[in-house]
Amino acid sequence: MNAAELQALIRDIPDFPQPGILFRDITPLLKDKRAFAGAIDLMCEGLAAQRIDHIVAIEARGYLLGAPMAYRLGAGLVPVRKPGKLPFKRLTADYALEYGTNSLEIHNDALSPGERVVIVDDLLATGGTAVATKSLLKQLGAAIVGVSFLVELTALHGREKLDGTPVNAVVKY
Amino acid sequence: MNAAELQALIRDIPDFPQPGILFRDITPLLKDKRAFAGAIDLMCEGLAAQRIDHIVAIEARGYLLGAPMAYRLGAGLVPVRKPGKLPFKRLTADYALEYGTNSLEIHNDALSPGERVVIVDDLLATGGTAVATKSLLKQLGAAIVGVSFLVELTALHGREKLDGTPVNAVVKY
Repeated sequence: MNAAELQALIRDIPDFPQPGILFRDITPLLKDKRAFAGAIDLMCEGLAAQRIDHIVAIEARGYLLGAPMAYRLGAGLVPVRKPGKLPFKRLTADYALEYGTNSLEIHNDALSPGERVVIVDDLLATGGTAVATKSLLKQLGAAIVGVSFLVELTALHGREKLDGTPVNAVVKY
Repeated sequence: MNAAELQALIRDIPDFPQPGILFRDITPLLKDKRAFAGAIDLMCEGLAAQRIDHIVAIEARGYLLGAPMAYRLGAGLVPVRKPGKLPFKRLTADYALEYGTNSLEIHNDALSPGERVVIVDDLLATGGTAVATKSLLKQLGAAIVGVSFLVELTALHGREKLDGTPVNAVVKY
């Protein structure tokens, strides 16, 4: 399946989660077995030929894509979580929301210096969560090979905030 | 990797998320590429020979295991989510916590009657979330082939609450 066929399975939901937001719902794509496998394969394109030690997946929808990418690439899987979920010693990074801030956490033994990782999430909007994840990975000394998204909202210019890191997105709006 | 080798990579965290709870932390297993792939393969054992239309994965740690199982089995992926996360029309099922209740939701078009599904989560404790997920799937008319966990806490007897549904767990405490 190519990107256009995948995009046709993404459903637009107006005014979710709040008025004025057009939500791109990937659940019809995920439930289609050919589309799901095709999306994972496209998100892995260009990565299979490299050494990737870990996929770093962002809670929660990033897990739906990052975990199968790790399996396909023969990599380990490292979850970045919302505050209070990880039980061991952890690092925290804040990121801005429209109003206020939120945080992401990673275990402080999740990665070793020099390990080659790819960050995965479902959607690139303003880039806040991906930038926060990059800062966590830099604190651990990991080598960030790239960031991989299923969907990119290009009008929000999140890609520019990820300067210097290769960004891959399968479906673009 | 066999179940004992996987179990050796699960870390015990006392008093998390609250005093008196011994938390079984699977993150050291997930980040080990051989263990992660081995866990997915063991969780899929006996399923590859059957027709499985969808993996139904429970938020959030269930996604880390259910999504790669769907990829490996060539199945579609259906996320069950916490309240307020799914954007389309949905069904809700409540389940009891030690104090109060919580809910899980599924899109009402996630599955068609007769589709063969496997429920996946990281850990079977009292069985509340798996039972709630079963009730969602029954409302949609799905055929529940089984429930697959990475870890089972046998002393909590969750398996008994899933009467009539085959339960698979790789690591048992």
